[in-house]
Amino acid sequence: MDNPRVTVWNEFRHEKSHESVKAVYPDGIHNTIAQAISNSGLEVRTATLDEPEHGLTEQVLAETDVLTWWGHMAHQEVSDEIVNRVHQRVLEGMGLVVLHSGHFSKIFQKLMGTTCNLKWREENDSERLWVVAPGHPITEGIGEYIHLEREEMYGEPFDIPEPDTLVFVSWFTGGEIFRSGVCYRRGKGKVFYFRPGHETLPTYHNPEIQRVILNGVRWAAPTQSAPMVFGNAPSLEGATA
Amino acid sequence: MDNPRVTVWNEFRHEKSHESVKAVYPDGIHNTIAQAISNSGLEVRTATLDEPEHGLTEQVLAETDVLTWWGHMAHQEVSDEIVNRVHQRVLEGMGLVVLHSGHFSKIFQKLMGTTCNLKWREENDSERLWVVAPGHPITEGIGEYIHLEREEMYGEPFDIPEPDTLVFVSWFTGGEIFRSGVCYRRGKGKVFYFRPGHETLPTYHNPEIQRVILNGVRWAAPTQSAPMVFGNAPSLEGATA
Amino acid sequence: MDNPRVTVWNEFRHEKSHESVKAVYPDGIHNTIAQAISNSGLEVRTATLDEPEHGLTEQVLAETDVLTWWGHMAHQEVSDEIVNRVHQRVLEGMGLVVLHSGHFSKIFQKLMGTTCNLKWREENDSERLWVVAPGHPITEGIGEYIHLEREEMYGEPFDIPEPDTLVFVSWFTGGEIFRSGVCYRRGKGKVFYFRPGHETLPTYHNPEIQRVILNGVRWAAPTQSAPMVFGNAPSLEGATA
Amino acid sequence: MDNPRVTVWNEFRHEKSHESVKAVYPDGIHNTIAQAISNSGLEVRTATLDEPEHGLTEQVLAETDVLTWWGHMAHQEVSDEIVNRVHQRVLEGMGLVVLHSGHFSKIFQKLMGTTCNLKWREENDSERLWVVAPGHPITEGIGEYIHLEREEMYGEPFDIPEPDTLVFVSWFTGGEIFRSGVCYRRGKGKVFYFRPGHETLPTYHNPEIQRVILNGVRWAAPTQSAPMVFGNAPSLEGATA
Repeated sequence: MDNPRVTVWNEFRHEKSHESVKAVYPDGIHNTIAQAISNSGLEVRTATLDEPEHGLTEQVLAETDVLTWWGHMAHQEVSDEIVNRVHQRVLEGMGLVVLHSGHFSKIFQKLMGTTCNLKWREENDSERLWVVAPGHPITEGIGEYIHLEREEMYGEPFDIPEPDTLVFVSWFTGGEIFRSGVCYRRGKGKVFYFRPGHETLPTYHNPEIQRVILNGVRWAAPTQSAPMVFGNAPSLEGATA
Repeated sequence: MDNPRVTVWNEFRHEKSHESVKAVYPDGIHNTIAQAISNSGLEVRTATLDEPEHGLTEQVLAETDVLTWWGHMAHQEVSDEIVNRVHQRVLEGMGLVVLHSGHFSKIFQKLMGTTCNLKWREENDSERLWVVAPGHPITEGIGEYIHLEREEMYGEPFDIPEPDTLVFVSWFTGGEIFRSGVCYRRGKGKVFYFRPGHETLPTYHNPEIQRVILNGVRWAAPTQSAPMVFGNAPSLEGATA
Repeated sequence: MDNPRVTVWNEFRHEKSHESVKAVYPDGIHNTIAQAISNSGLEVRTATLDEPEHGLTEQVLAETDVLTWWGHMAHQEVSDEIVNRVHQRVLEGMGLVVLHSGHFSKIFQKLMGTTCNLKWREENDSERLWVVAPGHPITEGIGEYIHLEREEMYGEPFDIPEPDTLVFVSWFTGGEIFRSGVCYRRGKGKVFYFRPGHETLPTYHNPEIQRVILNGVRWAAPTQSAPMVFGNAPSLEGATA
Repeated sequence: MDNPRVTVWNEFRHEKSHESVKAVYPDGIHNTIAQAISNSGLEVRTATLDEPEHGLTEQVLAETDVLTWWGHMAHQEVSDEIVNRVHQRVLEGMGLVVLHSGHFSKIFQKLMGTTCNLKWREENDSERLWVVAPGHPITEGIGEYIHLEREEMYGEPFDIPEPDTLVFVSWFTGGEIFRSGVCYRRGKGKVFYFRPGHETLPTYHNPEIQRVILNGVRWAAPTQSAPMVFGNAPSLEGATA
């Protein structure tokens, strides 16, 4: 699919309550990400936690080809009904790009089957995201690595299933590494988790980070093919006795 | 781990209510499987749905290195509390061998993150399980393929994540194929799904099928290594400013 | 890359010497495949074994984004120099789509590191290629399976490395299964092997088979990203004592 | 296989010509590794480049279940005949553990199908090998990570196929990461590459490194199962017209 319709979802709480976050993302993380995707010509809308149905109505999801997800302090406030709705849409083919602290979202945990837990530290680490899958479409336009002068550290173990493809591995000043760009298929849907993006830092203003998110969106776009058909099935070759 | 302690779990309902099943497994599917594993010298116990806590108390699970699971008609009667308990133990390292209709068990769905749905047919299909991972320890003692004169058909799509390792693919008379032996790691635990074993057929009396289950148990045995440590972590290399 | 330039390579011997092949592919297998790709709007050229440098000069390869490969009776006549040239281009990012008996080509063996051997039978088998990676871009426009009324059988074991992604598994009337659509990355290049295409059968005239080849070409198109840089590297973070 | 017979292969040139290496490994790297494996009760022999047939006669290989390989300055002196012999044995099921600069050995390149090139630096880096596959048998007895106070740096890109399993990722002081423990199956054989072991440093005297090598040997031990059978095959289900 060449031009997936994107919905950028954000918890949108830190930006209201923390001055340090508001200073970096005055319109919310979602609008910074949405603008970057929109600049590439894709059709983008946003949705946030405090909207009715978290902004993810049946209709919105039906018109969404790829959903991006940022959440942190209010994962438990996302209703199970909406999580199940998103889960079903992913299995039907909607792409999902999970960002940073979204690793602990209900939807990511549900899709992974593990805790998605990790180590973390908010100090003065630099991060360097090394490409370990050269040639993968998510690395389009990216150099050997992306350097972020300041980021929150996430460290292994990262309790996720073995990725279908490992695209980035991060180095941190403090001595840790992290599998920071990982791809999965679930049902007909594609899932990309991308690590950077602490709310007090200007990471989502970084053009290289924006490019990876855009690449992730394009990679995760749905494929137009047969739906998965389950259940009792007649023999195709006359197996009945 | 050389001698894992095994618990064989069975729903144990068909064998009580259906004469056709009782005729094949008079003591229940679990006792047939447990006997086969026990013959190899491993320590085995059984547990069933209608026991208190489904026979899976904290203590039983604490003393279980590998759990095997067969269920079919009563998946919904397995309590979420026990499912969560088993899930946690798998992430901590307990092996899990899921058999046949156990594909639809809550614990397998929770670990996979997908519906685990599939096609099926109860007719007169033969099944031939081809080894596609020669050299994998689960194929120890097995030939090029295992032939089962009569089995229920399971067909693709099988809604599971891409396996870490695909060990067997089945051919069915009626025209379908199925990924019938698949391996995953989840947390520190190993999960092996093995397809055959319809309740009205003598599949679990078949020595090759017994051998694969035993191989799966040995493969899924826990590794004695560091527990996964999560949370706030100090710098190892003096990253603080 | 949206519009990869394609070179369709064919051994082009059977079509000259065997009437039964000439009848099905009067202009050679390459021209049938090239026409199908060209119909989608991509720029296509062909190359064959008996041309100078097998038609794969430095310049041709420099202008090729994706190369498709069909060979059978004359694998050993492909010069090692050209094989090494193609190998280097794949590692630099050129896509490679290997078809049918191309499994035994020098270039596929060199990229896989294994014999790529298999079972085979030329009789009256039907083949049914089941999609096992729903949502993968190579399945775009394809149904649950592709049915070929008559094809040569290829059976497991197929001596290849575990695929990065398994897209299709074939069922054959005679009782075998085969991993018939498999994806790999090697260096910056992507490799797709696709099984069908016996020279005496009209398989490459089949629109679904043409669609899969086209999908494979698009999937294997190069990514524009940093070249791989090797060798002695200075410290990025002042590690020198 | 519980007690694989091991052959430890070493180029054994640095230890003769460089005082700095001789000081660390007076009897050669091979004897340090062999002693560590032997201490665990396994049967071990050694072989080196300058022996007839590099010490890898048909008989030696026939009696070897797992081969370990260290080489650096003389990769090109290993004869193609012996490389092919080892290659064939791996495909038949012999395990192979490739160490450090063995990444550039002919046998590893042949099995991988890529250049196996990488970045490197001999300075004052520390290395920290993080476990990213907790529960994998190669991590038996290992903590969250292994710390090496001084090691040669190897950095990405590491031109290898996507590993079947990624077990360790290394952090280096100078800013790089590296996939330092990777597993593959090739034919019936298992291949484990393990990064550490610069010849001037006492890495192979480190008990944790010795433990990983021993774990790798046990993991790579052959499976007793059917040989791979190729070629023309009769129908199993009466497909002939």
